[in-house]
Amino acid sequence: MTDTWSQRWSRRGKLAASGSAPSRVAPPGMISFVYGDPDVPSLPLEEMAQAAEYLAENNRRDALAYQNAIQGDELNESLAQKLARDQGIHVSPEQIFVSHGASAGLSLLCDMVLDPGDVVLADAPAWMGATNMFRLAGAEVIGVPLDDDGIDPARVEAVLDDLARQGRKPKFLYTIPTFQNPEGVELSLERRHALAKLADERDLLIVEDDAYVDLRFSGEPKPTLFSLSQRGNVLFSGTLSKTIAAGLRLGYLVGPADVMATMARGAVDTLRNTYTAALADWYLRSGKLEAHIIELRQIYREKCERMLAALEREMPEGTSWTRPNGGFFIWLTLPEGVDAVDMLPAAREAGVDYIPGTAFYSDGSGRGNLRLSYSGVTLEQIDEGIARLAKVTRAALAKAGAPAD
Amino acid sequence: MTDTWSQRWSRRGKLAASGSAPSRVAPPGMISFVYGDPDVPSLPLEEMAQAAEYLAENNRRDALAYQNAIQGDELNESLAQKLARDQGIHVSPEQIFVSHGASAGLSLLCDMVLDPGDVVLADAPAWMGATNMFRLAGAEVIGVPLDDDGIDPARVEAVLDDLARQGRKPKFLYTIPTFQNPEGVELSLERRHALAKLADERDLLIVEDDAYVDLRFSGEPKPTLFSLSQRGNVLFSGTLSKTIAAGLRLGYLVGPADVMATMARGAVDTLRNTYTAALADWYLRSGKLEAHIIELRQIYREKCERMLAALEREMPEGTSWTRPNGGFFIWLTLPEGVDAVDMLPAAREAGVDYIPGTAFYSDGSGRGNLRLSYSGVTLEQIDEGIARLAKVTRAALAKAGAPAD
Repeated sequence: MTDTWSQRWSRRGKLAASGSAPSRVAPPGMISFVYGDPDVPSLPLEEMAQAAEYLAENNRRDALAYQNAIQGDELNESLAQKLARDQGIHVSPEQIFVSHGASAGLSLLCDMVLDPGDVVLADAPAWMGATNMFRLAGAEVIGVPLDDDGIDPARVEAVLDDLARQGRKPKFLYTIPTFQNPEGVELSLERRHALAKLADERDLLIVEDDAYVDLRFSGEPKPTLFSLSQRGNVLFSGTLSKTIAAGLRLGYLVGPADVMATMARGAVDTLRNTYTAALADWYLRSGKLEAHIIELRQIYREKCERMLAALEREMPEGTSWTRPNGGFFIWLTLPEGVDAVDMLPAAREAGVDYIPGTAFYSDGSGRGNLRLSYSGVTLEQIDEGIARLAKVTRAALAKAGAPAD
Repeated sequence: MTDTWSQRWSRRGKLAASGSAPSRVAPPGMISFVYGDPDVPSLPLEEMAQAAEYLAENNRRDALAYQNAIQGDELNESLAQKLARDQGIHVSPEQIFVSHGASAGLSLLCDMVLDPGDVVLADAPAWMGATNMFRLAGAEVIGVPLDDDGIDPARVEAVLDDLARQGRKPKFLYTIPTFQNPEGVELSLERRHALAKLADERDLLIVEDDAYVDLRFSGEPKPTLFSLSQRGNVLFSGTLSKTIAAGLRLGYLVGPADVMATMARGAVDTLRNTYTAALADWYLRSGKLEAHIIELRQIYREKCERMLAALEREMPEGTSWTRPNGGFFIWLTLPEGVDAVDMLPAAREAGVDYIPGTAFYSDGSGRGNLRLSYSGVTLEQIDEGIARLAKVTRAALAKAGAPAD
């Protein structure tokens, strides 16, 4: 970087300049459990060509022109139908803001509600994609610990009380209630009711990120926080990235119509991804999405079970892990004395990659944890990758147990 | 808006909440010269279906998966070839950051270099989409007046000197040198050299927005500022929205590789529009873009000439306008005493819509001007719309000339 540029960056630019981002492309031979990538062979490539053909045959040239992010158009209608059918969310098309992937919607939300110095509550551990955004916006992120039933409303309340004593109030609570990233756990029914009630009592805005909600392969479906809040204190963030294709870049925020309209005015690029929105709309209306989701549940169930079986078979005693009912992730707790950060170079050397738990905390916690994503790898890679992981864990454990030099 | 929400917005959110954005959809019967919309009948809808079919036949399932915004992939390569061929810009694929439309690239640039209180120089009048972004970022926008040869480097230098005396320096100069929005003028060859030299002498970053550069229908092509800067002080902003389709949401920033890599780290959604990028890449490689641009030049030439002829035929004496060599816009100066803001309700009543010049200035200037976009309307609409505009202008002129009540 030239000196000239080092003086050009903003507060946020300096943060970015000092960071680094891993490549999404794993080196040859590496089995990567890093990214929550989709199962590639099932991506509906032929169906997108069918959709494109449909648009051409019907002279839908509007699908290549500019469109606003909010308008009562086809995709908003088909999403409203999907939300009512699958998520118990009954909204009008004007309450849906379609963004370039869910990340762009969350990013706009940050722009619109966060000033430097603001406080945000988040799952601890939390998806770092979101917490990084909050930090780039200058917010302080306070983590609320998860257990096997998700985030604990009593702990949320305690943090609210603590902050209130300092004269502060969080701008929102960001949480993934269903098949959480990175833990894979889901918020219990009882806690969902309690959390929605707390939001209404305390005027706490909840940002409910339900990227994985459609990908349940066991357990009972649970109501969304959005549907439980009586006073509209929940914004729902959804995505088509996990169920149709990430490459379409289509996410959606759901909330009060006037709030969504304000969001649209605050967006510097208010224009929707018109063409992929039209492709996705065709896919939803044709009933293909419902059928595809059933297929995906089976695919991810099989991968998850294969990874759970491999962990059971391979990992040394003292290792534990979550058992997800859906989604993409398993959260592993290493045996006492084994450190996920320290072990990573040896793991990569052995041809297996993961994200150490520390990436999901802001306070240095998580050295004893790691996130494993089973979504993008094959069944054979799962077997071989977990065998490699077990081997390096055993080596690290032996080293930890050995007397210090 | 509920009271709860009024307390939730950030500085930027409050700005957006207080604003309003016009609908892109004109009411029935209205002839709208408002938006720089593309010529819809020529949008390559069938070719996009061909591209989608090509991806399906070649099992390009990666086109539906996640991809980073910068990587040496196909679209970056074909854009690098296009830039070398058409814009004299010789860069490696790593110097190109593909964004969700040019707006998203500019927006990211704002995030990365602007802090509240910073100064930005811009064309006066300037495209309000850009200046609105700068203001949302908290920057002060100083306009540098245009004449028929574009922005005047001597005036830019004078503003730099003025600011230097106050101990300030602008973060960048934003300019559209070719077929400027809203004026339609282009920066002369001599001024291009002088402006690039000034940028290098004063370490002034220029953001060169060349959205319309491919759509020249008369006059000599001129070198880009990017190609003239000897010290890399120009970032080039390009787009496929005007030449392929706005609905694909594909724009690109071009600059030093390390700067582009930092931009990618600062983006909260670093993932490219993978699927539309693959469609566009097929379109570029097939040679169809070059052929299509030739067709588009003819289409926009005809529309522009039709509007110029209609203005000549219809408008009252004292009206003047620019004569563009390309692009989408004509800038009209109304007869003395006629006010574009005051006249707008009557114009809409008469079934014709435009943007008053004030929208393109930050200081209330421009009441005597208006922007007319000929790109999205038909030849018949141009004739009829300008006749309507002339009629309301004559009425306003009569009223202005009449003694006050």
